[in-house]
Amino acid sequence: MKIFGIDPGSERTGYGCVEQSGSRHHLVLCGSLAAPATATFPERLKHIHAGLVALLAESQPDCVAIESIFHARNVRSALRLGHARGVALLAASEAGLQVAEYAPAEIKRAVVGYGRAEKPQIQQMVKLLLGLDRVPSPHDAADALAVAICHLHNSTGSVAETVRRYRAPRTTVRSWREYRPS
Amino acid sequence: MKIFGIDPGSERTGYGCVEQSGSRHHLVLCGSLAAPATATFPERLKHIHAGLVALLAESQPDCVAIESIFHARNVRSALRLGHARGVALLAASEAGLQVAEYAPAEIKRAVVGYGRAEKPQIQQMVKLLLGLDRVPSPHDAADALAVAICHLHNSTGSVAETVRRYRAPRTTVRSWREYRPS
Repeated sequence: MKIFGIDPGSERTGYGCVEQSGSRHHLVLCGSLAAPATATFPERLKHIHAGLVALLAESQPDCVAIESIFHARNVRSALRLGHARGVALLAASEAGLQVAEYAPAEIKRAVVGYGRAEKPQIQQMVKLLLGLDRVPSPHDAADALAVAICHLHNSTGSVAETVRRYRAPRTTVRSWREYRPS
Repeated sequence: MKIFGIDPGSERTGYGCVEQSGSRHHLVLCGSLAAPATATFPERLKHIHAGLVALLAESQPDCVAIESIFHARNVRSALRLGHARGVALLAASEAGLQVAEYAPAEIKRAVVGYGRAEKPQIQQMVKLLLGLDRVPSPHDAADALAVAICHLHNSTGSVAETVRRYRAPRTTVRSWREYRPS
């Protein structure tokens, strides 16, 4: 099962594709799409859309996972984010893929085991779960991988297991941040 | 000069293309795109995008005009509107067209001559300016035509003239609503 996660943004859109084989997660690809700083807003949207269309064709996922958003700093930022999210959903729909949406707290719970986890915790957990040698960069890519992992956990019913396995580190966040996978 | 106006919405997206020859405006086409009620949100976006791509190819405009939005009822409606507006801007950008944005008050001023005009006034004025036998229906189509007309007036510098020509009816809104072009 292969999931393509998207973390949309009008400045930078993160993406990350994760494959599950057995109980292991593998990184297929990840990164972020950013249009040139001189691009107009419609050009930015075209850049995001064209990038995602190409990446979806390349990675051939079974499903797309994206963060559901019901709040934003303000109406203006919600509008801008909506534009980017709109072209991301369009790319998924054009590829004939189902879109699964997860609330931020669900993603955190599925990945870290705690719905109010901080960004660095999520990044470290993504690195750990995918067996990477470093935290995926930029952070939009890590966020996109997190939502893909969230969907894998939800669709394979292993949320509870993940939570159980990784509950201990949560109690010692300070030292956990320095955790290195063997 | 041919302008394609768009009034985006996640439920229904109005469009209208207006051509100017000399001092006259002509209707090229107008209408609204609405996905089936059973469609998912990504499917709706695909429907809007595919429809606009086809209509832009058919009408071959010189430019796209769209309402700029900096406010919405709330963050949630801003997000939904942003999605629809995003795929509309994408369609314009993919067609290699420039996008002109106008604030609601600018559109009203350019079409009716009064920045706080009511919807029925705008609809009647669109009908009058395009020499139509009835108000364009649905109202999203009239709104899209209004933004296209606004851009024509702005680019041909005839705003002041339009305002002057149609200032009288504004003072008698009650009777003006029943106005019929000869």
